[in-house]
Amino acid sequence: MNINQLDLRGVAYNKIRNFKLLINRSFWTFFIRIRLKVFGVKFHKPIKFYGNSYFIRFRFSKMNIGKNCTFISTSYMNMAGINKKNTISTIQKGAELIIGDRCGISGAVILVAEKITIGEKVLVGANCFISDYGFHELDPDKRWNNQTASDVSAPVVIEDNVWLGMNVTVLKGVTIGKNSVIGANSLVTKDIPANVIAAGNPCKVIRNIK
Amino acid sequence: MNINQLDLRGVAYNKIRNFKLLINRSFWTFFIRIRLKVFGVKFHKPIKFYGNSYFIRFRFSKMNIGKNCTFISTSYMNMAGINKKNTISTIQKGAELIIGDRCGISGAVILVAEKITIGEKVLVGANCFISDYGFHELDPDKRWNNQTASDVSAPVVIEDNVWLGMNVTVLKGVTIGKNSVIGANSLVTKDIPANVIAAGNPCKVIRNIK
Amino acid sequence: MNINQLDLRGVAYNKIRNFKLLINRSFWTFFIRIRLKVFGVKFHKPIKFYGNSYFIRFRFSKMNIGKNCTFISTSYMNMAGINKKNTISTIQKGAELIIGDRCGISGAVILVAEKITIGEKVLVGANCFISDYGFHELDPDKRWNNQTASDVSAPVVIEDNVWLGMNVTVLKGVTIGKNSVIGANSLVTKDIPANVIAAGNPCKVIRNIK
Repeated sequence: MNINQLDLRGVAYNKIRNFKLLINRSFWTFFIRIRLKVFGVKFHKPIKFYGNSYFIRFRFSKMNIGKNCTFISTSYMNMAGINKKNTISTIQKGAELIIGDRCGISGAVILVAEKITIGEKVLVGANCFISDYGFHELDPDKRWNNQTASDVSAPVVIEDNVWLGMNVTVLKGVTIGKNSVIGANSLVTKDIPANVIAAGNPCKVIRNIK
Repeated sequence: MNINQLDLRGVAYNKIRNFKLLINRSFWTFFIRIRLKVFGVKFHKPIKFYGNSYFIRFRFSKMNIGKNCTFISTSYMNMAGINKKNTISTIQKGAELIIGDRCGISGAVILVAEKITIGEKVLVGANCFISDYGFHELDPDKRWNNQTASDVSAPVVIEDNVWLGMNVTVLKGVTIGKNSVIGANSLVTKDIPANVIAAGNPCKVIRNIK
Repeated sequence: MNINQLDLRGVAYNKIRNFKLLINRSFWTFFIRIRLKVFGVKFHKPIKFYGNSYFIRFRFSKMNIGKNCTFISTSYMNMAGINKKNTISTIQKGAELIIGDRCGISGAVILVAEKITIGEKVLVGANCFISDYGFHELDPDKRWNNQTASDVSAPVVIEDNVWLGMNVTVLKGVTIGKNSVIGANSLVTKDIPANVIAAGNPCKVIRNIK
């Protein structure tokens, strides 16, 4: 096909796609908002959902979502490729999740044992994992005992305007400073300062953003 | 919501979730156990399945699962986020997979060309990949010839009480020693001794577990 | 089960599986070929699809697929484990995707803003990501302005007979030379020469292939 030719099929396909996405968004936004209300997840309108998203709130825990947030769980919308539905959960009493205004979250896992704070305008690239929880004891003798979740957790903070690239994993105890960008596929095990680009496994600062 | 307030919605939601999981587990455990029997995968009761799991056994190959194992293929149960159904397969005659007692496996791929041995009480975090198979020849001239699977395979051993973190990839020929912990997102290309914490791409020993 | 025993169940299961895959391939190949024609994606027969694949073509952009290509979107066929359906998309006018003959692609994301060229006999392992697009500006002040996609894109070339391992990520501006092999889980941020094995995050040359 010559690029200057009239591309009626392309135009038609794009219109159909936009229409399908509108239907998808309307359906899931309507449906999930009801679910959030019924099960006590606090959110502010407007909020948008493309595809389903799991919100699994433990009793006596808080989930608070700012306004103008968008949650995407389908590759048809975010063509960077979504592995799974957003899975946002608190796993014990007193856990607290705060998501600021204007965040965009795609196919992410956010698992809260203690406290996770996500600022405003944070972009969470496709298939990220953010958790303040370590799951199990490192010590093999303790691993199969009944520890409490708090023994292996530490709060996570992601400040305003941070951009997490695709497939980024943020582990317990980490703070990522304002405006910073984390490269795709990074594993963030330690604090990252503000206004830097950082990447790698483990994630290290590469340079400042001027 | 104040944390000290009565959180009836949370309590109700948690009860509903537990009930849904019970139904899910009952259904899939019943159904998959029949499938395993029909197709000659050996297992020991009790065994638990949350969501579907693929077991793809090649003729004249062995799959042997110990007792008290749990297989999870849904993010609704393992909130660390499951990308895909467990996919456990043998791909040629004589291949042998042995999984010990009390293992927990979530959204994993275990692909056996020769022999994979997984010990007791092994925790396989979400979305791991374990294979003794290299898929293709490195030499570009041989890559498209019909090699046999054994040309590019070497046995894998994961000893008792090992904990593989999320998204860990274990390649052919690797042995991971007793009690060791492999950090999230690691790529294990060489043997890891017992009683250590190891992580990274490629995976290196970080320190001993005292 | 003794390996020398008659394994009727295994033989039966293998036959059933092959039959299921044949049905799957026939259905999806028939169905997707119609979709590609209707929406103006150019392809050459024979072409095979296992499971669904998304092709999302922007108006006035080109997608051109060579003959003898295979697209797999189900773990039941590629037991290395497929996270998601193939998601192959162009995102602006003038974008151009060229895929050569005899390529095999499994659960990949190929996202084109400008131009991606994939040669002949390229093997794209499970769950790879290939894009010439950077998604957002690194500069926090510009990130929320309306940039055009071309501001953050640079063409990608993957030459003949390259083999990308599982979970490989290829970022914008990268050229990977003929015959080279990229190890599993690598993040390719810079050019890789021909005839080498390269791996890691970030991806570095390990050795030549003799």
